[in-house]
Amino acid sequence: MHPQEIIANKRDGKELSQQEINAFVSGITNETWADYQTSALLMAIFLRGFSLDEQNNLTKAMLESGDSIDFSHIDAPKADKHSTGGVGDKTSLIIAPMVAACGVFVPMISGRGLGHTGGTLDKLESIVGYNVNLTTEQFKQVIKRCGFAMSGQTKRLAPADKKLYALRDATATVGSVPLIVSSVMSKKLAEGLDALVLDVKTGSGAFMQKSADAKKLAAALVKTGNAFGVKTEAVISDMNQPLGKFVGNTLEVFESIKILRGETDAKMSPVLELSIELAARMLVLCGVAETIQDSRLKIQNSLESGKALEKFRQNIELQNGNPDVCDRPEKLLDKSLLKIEIKGKTAGFITEIDATAIGEAVSEIGGGRIKMEDKIDFAVGFQCVKKLGGKVEAGGTLGFIFCRNETQANLIYQKLVNAYKISNEKPTGKFQLIKEIILS
Amino acid sequence: MHPQEIIANKRDGKELSQQEINAFVSGITNETWADYQTSALLMAIFLRGFSLDEQNNLTKAMLESGDSIDFSHIDAPKADKHSTGGVGDKTSLIIAPMVAACGVFVPMISGRGLGHTGGTLDKLESIVGYNVNLTTEQFKQVIKRCGFAMSGQTKRLAPADKKLYALRDATATVGSVPLIVSSVMSKKLAEGLDALVLDVKTGSGAFMQKSADAKKLAAALVKTGNAFGVKTEAVISDMNQPLGKFVGNTLEVFESIKILRGETDAKMSPVLELSIELAARMLVLCGVAETIQDSRLKIQNSLESGKALEKFRQNIELQNGNPDVCDRPEKLLDKSLLKIEIKGKTAGFITEIDATAIGEAVSEIGGGRIKMEDKIDFAVGFQCVKKLGGKVEAGGTLGFIFCRNETQANLIYQKLVNAYKISNEKPTGKFQLIKEIILS
Repeated sequence: MHPQEIIANKRDGKELSQQEINAFVSGITNETWADYQTSALLMAIFLRGFSLDEQNNLTKAMLESGDSIDFSHIDAPKADKHSTGGVGDKTSLIIAPMVAACGVFVPMISGRGLGHTGGTLDKLESIVGYNVNLTTEQFKQVIKRCGFAMSGQTKRLAPADKKLYALRDATATVGSVPLIVSSVMSKKLAEGLDALVLDVKTGSGAFMQKSADAKKLAAALVKTGNAFGVKTEAVISDMNQPLGKFVGNTLEVFESIKILRGETDAKMSPVLELSIELAARMLVLCGVAETIQDSRLKIQNSLESGKALEKFRQNIELQNGNPDVCDRPEKLLDKSLLKIEIKGKTAGFITEIDATAIGEAVSEIGGGRIKMEDKIDFAVGFQCVKKLGGKVEAGGTLGFIFCRNETQANLIYQKLVNAYKISNEKPTGKFQLIKEIILS
Repeated sequence: MHPQEIIANKRDGKELSQQEINAFVSGITNETWADYQTSALLMAIFLRGFSLDEQNNLTKAMLESGDSIDFSHIDAPKADKHSTGGVGDKTSLIIAPMVAACGVFVPMISGRGLGHTGGTLDKLESIVGYNVNLTTEQFKQVIKRCGFAMSGQTKRLAPADKKLYALRDATATVGSVPLIVSSVMSKKLAEGLDALVLDVKTGSGAFMQKSADAKKLAAALVKTGNAFGVKTEAVISDMNQPLGKFVGNTLEVFESIKILRGETDAKMSPVLELSIELAARMLVLCGVAETIQDSRLKIQNSLESGKALEKFRQNIELQNGNPDVCDRPEKLLDKSLLKIEIKGKTAGFITEIDATAIGEAVSEIGGGRIKMEDKIDFAVGFQCVKKLGGKVEAGGTLGFIFCRNETQANLIYQKLVNAYKISNEKPTGKFQLIKEIILS
């Protein structure tokens, strides 16, 4: 089957057969399809769409383009969480140890940050020595010993996805639901899971800014997960402002450890609120808790008892990091950084925050990547002092930049000020962090 | 402007600005756009379409990506003809000398055959010594001396088109009207013409098999030609059977010279009928004839007086070919070829001919190209004995294969037999070679 024939079929709005989709994916892996043929089909898929069968067949072909992890040596439920990416989202670092402390194993394969979004691997690497490049064998051993492991994708895991993602990024075809689903799910399904909870973000800092798009994506992800026998649910959560207090790799690890140490009240921390919700759903889907209420209590108990922190400490040790940060998280922070205050121009209430702009600003001073090959300065970042609905005086503090020098601060100062919309009127309506649950 | 932004705009159905289209074309020429980005935009253009402004801006950018030919040394009208490609179409070889004999200069830049369609350059190369690779300076000198020249595209003529065409061919995006228009017109407009007549084929051997598609393309070509100040008309002509008696390079040159020698009655030869129509329109558009009726007589006279043949003889000499073929066209033919009869299975009337299949069959025995890099055997081909509406006995002759050996004949015999649909009932309705004229 020539690539042109398959491209022409999708171009004309036909449903691609399983055979055609397999030919496409093996064409990518064995390089018999040229990149320009792949990208032409990607654009045709973007514009013509994919049926659920096509979406599942693409996921299957991409999953089978690589290895799956064999967890037959672990006789316990396995669950994972995946987020569509946001600003200041450090829930993975809190969820994995909490869930592991409740007896569910978490084989968490994570990614790097790009553009305005952060990545779990980058955050973890701000812990000195922490190794996110585990071999599959090391990954399995770490999980067996402490209940969870966090590592990057090996070359043998869904190799077609790596090529496809790079092409989608370069050809404006990232935002296609079936392409997102097959990319996410081909990697997650290779983890040999019993359950998966998806955190689909919506709002100014989310990939899917519109709520309707986020819902569509969440429903598609849930359908495909369940079609492959993995109990899958999705939580649609708010990303109209950075999640929690800090944006920036070290600062986010600091915030996470403070939470794991019980030094933050759940009611005061949206990071913890969302982490508990996602973790609790993982337990219920695995059958470890009967109701979501029971499950929340169980998760909360793992935190209050110090068991979750203990799991995190074990994990850091097993992945070659320095576990001292669990006892003295402030040791993570670089005292030589400048702390520059961001001041609001007018008095009033914060009615909008451009979370993407805040994520981009942090990337621009080295806290994230503009291009995939950029190096990261883990220490720099932003502290969000005022949140949505908050009251601010004229010239009052909106937040603080943590940076290396004044040039960096000047580079992003105005962008950060402009990220906040201040209005005279107090916003009405309750702020909702968790917007909707898409059940399996 | 990032390629992704431009791709995203067209993906979302927006009209691209002139600046965006220029960025795209210069991105192709200076290789700052990756091929996979170009092909993603091509697919978006295919599916989202282009406005007339976008079509003209793309044509302009592609035209300006290369050189135009300066004809300031020739003080006479200049006209050309372009065909969308067919089977057995050798009209260029007859039109150019006829029009030149009437005082209009014809700077004809032609192409090669690919797939089932033939190419003028290949046909000409079957004349021993004929050089189709003229420099621009040689091209201009040949035109000045004999009124027309026929040559391939130099590297400096619309270079963006070469890359685009190769990508379109590999990504199933050839059949997009604005992409066809910009490809054809960017090359034709570089010829510095006063007038252009397009022969848009429709039917079983045409690129646009459906009449409605051919009409749409013809109208688009005519609009863009006139927008650039070149008087442009299109003729929609029938390609439901090979044009004329022969398919195959040498055989078609033989047929053309026989026509130029006046050895064929116009009423009996669709090749001549179509050539006269196209040539006559070129003269009228250039203002050399007042009415189409006058023009037809003028063209016919160029043939009957022997002036057209004389022009062809001069041209062959100037382009290093052996002009003896004008006196003894049978000398072109290779007597060592096998001539294999194709017999119909049943008696009846020919109601359909798959002209594409006939073109492909000739290519399969070396008379054309399957891939662009294939070498051609000029001598082989097919003689069409029976045409649409013709009566055939059971076992009667449909045509003859001219080939090197029986293996070749066996390879394509059945395909040729199957190309003819024979029915008991005599087809009603008159066969129409020239279906419609799209005026400027």
